[in-house]
Amino acid sequence: MLGNCLENVRKNVPLVHNITNYVTVNDVANVLLACGGSPIMSDEPEDVEDITSICGSLNINIGTLNQSSIKGMFLAGKKANELNHPVLLDPVGAGASALRTNTAVKLMDEIKFTVIRGNISEIKTLALGSGTTKGVDADVADAVTDANLDAAVKFVKDFASKTGSVIAITGAIDLVGDSEKCYVIRNGRPEMGKITGTGCQLSGMMSAFISANPDNTLEAAAASVVTMGLAGEIGWKNMQPGDGNSTYRNRIIDAIFNMDAETLNKGAKYEVR
Amino acid sequence: MLGNCLENVRKNVPLVHNITNYVTVNDVANVLLACGGSPIMSDEPEDVEDITSICGSLNINIGTLNQSSIKGMFLAGKKANELNHPVLLDPVGAGASALRTNTAVKLMDEIKFTVIRGNISEIKTLALGSGTTKGVDADVADAVTDANLDAAVKFVKDFASKTGSVIAITGAIDLVGDSEKCYVIRNGRPEMGKITGTGCQLSGMMSAFISANPDNTLEAAAASVVTMGLAGEIGWKNMQPGDGNSTYRNRIIDAIFNMDAETLNKGAKYEVR
Amino acid sequence: MLGNCLENVRKNVPLVHNITNYVTVNDVANVLLACGGSPIMSDEPEDVEDITSICGSLNINIGTLNQSSIKGMFLAGKKANELNHPVLLDPVGAGASALRTNTAVKLMDEIKFTVIRGNISEIKTLALGSGTTKGVDADVADAVTDANLDAAVKFVKDFASKTGSVIAITGAIDLVGDSEKCYVIRNGRPEMGKITGTGCQLSGMMSAFISANPDNTLEAAAASVVTMGLAGEIGWKNMQPGDGNSTYRNRIIDAIFNMDAETLNKGAKYEVR
Repeated sequence: MLGNCLENVRKNVPLVHNITNYVTVNDVANVLLACGGSPIMSDEPEDVEDITSICGSLNINIGTLNQSSIKGMFLAGKKANELNHPVLLDPVGAGASALRTNTAVKLMDEIKFTVIRGNISEIKTLALGSGTTKGVDADVADAVTDANLDAAVKFVKDFASKTGSVIAITGAIDLVGDSEKCYVIRNGRPEMGKITGTGCQLSGMMSAFISANPDNTLEAAAASVVTMGLAGEIGWKNMQPGDGNSTYRNRIIDAIFNMDAETLNKGAKYEVR
Repeated sequence: MLGNCLENVRKNVPLVHNITNYVTVNDVANVLLACGGSPIMSDEPEDVEDITSICGSLNINIGTLNQSSIKGMFLAGKKANELNHPVLLDPVGAGASALRTNTAVKLMDEIKFTVIRGNISEIKTLALGSGTTKGVDADVADAVTDANLDAAVKFVKDFASKTGSVIAITGAIDLVGDSEKCYVIRNGRPEMGKITGTGCQLSGMMSAFISANPDNTLEAAAASVVTMGLAGEIGWKNMQPGDGNSTYRNRIIDAIFNMDAETLNKGAKYEVR
Repeated sequence: MLGNCLENVRKNVPLVHNITNYVTVNDVANVLLACGGSPIMSDEPEDVEDITSICGSLNINIGTLNQSSIKGMFLAGKKANELNHPVLLDPVGAGASALRTNTAVKLMDEIKFTVIRGNISEIKTLALGSGTTKGVDADVADAVTDANLDAAVKFVKDFASKTGSVIAITGAIDLVGDSEKCYVIRNGRPEMGKITGTGCQLSGMMSAFISANPDNTLEAAAASVVTMGLAGEIGWKNMQPGDGNSTYRNRIIDAIFNMDAETLNKGAKYEVR
């Protein structure tokens, strides 16, 4: 059950090394604390190998990448691979600039990612590859809907098979799959898109979940997606007249802080394909 | 009417490229989402031209400038000029250090800014110029008050005429003017000064307003100033016993999220000189 | 009385130069405003000397150090020493990586710190020194408890004597001491550990307190620790059902905003040893 995955986070308090953007980093840290993990941030090349060595997993987010942090991503990723730590890639803005696309593709070439999490457009960009890298068929629409769900699930499984990573595509419908099995998740609220960084927050939290559930990566990744979506639903229910996206941000993190296994299991809306 | 300018933001959802400081960047992103825009942050020189190309406007804020981001500012600004995107300068701390003053002055030399927004001391610094750059007469007091309003309005119009930019000076009384016309705005609350980054937030929001109202830059800039000030008034009214500056920050962003054209038009306190 | 120290901050509005991490920097700024100070952030080597010159104190936090900001720390620290400004060191993660440990130790070698503030593990790391630097005896347990309080107080006094700095170790029991006198402080709530950056916030606030109370560093540092802890207690009392760590963060800063000398004196729980 998904609830067990959350309980394992609270029990194990996984330390997560985040190389992430400066826009949403504070929320990533507070979400990690809310779910029961513990955050460390470090992107300096000379620092990242030591830091990743004392952590349980590594979260690489390219949201505000720079020449120095890119070096840090490669060094930390390789060290984490060496130590068999789970590593997550959040390819923020892949497809929006050559540097982002190329960095994400090169990271995938040189580092083995346990999970890759992004929106459909970012994941499609990675699947198509860039430059000399050959991609997979990314003939999938720009949003996952009930109408194209079969094709989207197939795309997730194919890309997971090609990469050996769990693939998580988040949007109105969330897909989390490996080569054989795909969670189709319908938790969440459209208003979450009016808060900066719910995706980054999820990537941080997912890194804690996969660290605390090493034998169960797919389910752990799915559990973190359900936790985020359900927290969005609970947070929205607690909104008062006059509240807006800033208060909503707080309420979602608060809902994660208060989430327990029973609430998670009861509120989860998903099927497995 | 100012309300139309807000409606155009909500209708067009302008994508705003922000090269901004890491202190207030999360609030800038959430304010942009609250008003109906969409934020992207990128300061890496190799990344900024691609990112600015897909955006509707560019917001340059020198609050925590460094050698790399300064390069990014020039590259992005020139690219945005090339593409005729509106570009805003927020010269945070101009006058407080040689690097900030010189960077802001050089940016003004090499990039055409649609709007320059700062406090009176920063704008005076730019007007005086530095080094080899010749400035304009900045014989205006250190705060805009009713007593020196005529001189301040003249200063705004003169500096707007010299630079070809809309000039926005924010403080207890806000001035937003071009060479011929100056909005004198009296919305806002003194307590807004106890929150970090209300100026940065306004610059981000203003960048969305001028992007969504391309034929109406002056009015759009004024509308964003009124939106911020009025949100400060509404947020303050919603304060409860025990609330302080941290909650006030949330309430202001929430008030922007809930702002509509009617509320804006009704609450606006300004005259045009 | 500790309350006077807070009143002096509100009266003098000290400008604090922060070279701090991008994770918690926004909260540091808002806490500085909440207590009556005024924040400036700058880490670019070419910028820091000018900025520190116009400030009343300098807060160096190595939480997300990089090659450029490290240079900035040394330049700013030396300039602040030259100008006799109080300088605080927050050695975030000393002991967790060689770069952090070595940077903190080298900073201590080259810069005279008025206060060093960290958790017990960071301060022990500094006391032991690294590489060629000889440390002091750090035979103290990994958490300050009633059982080892005598040894911990002795450690604080010894390390203060060796360094000439006020030493502040924060945790369940907080110790703030110089070579002769040590405040043992029991304010605070364990739930504060579920918010990112309460330590960083305290370092920022402490920098304002020691700037505004130049003849009374030890008491000022202790007053800031009590202010933070008491705000944690008041903030917790204001929590509503459904609230979590994100709202708690706001409530603590709000409580600092509303703190007055009487509340502080009445709520302070400490003894001097």
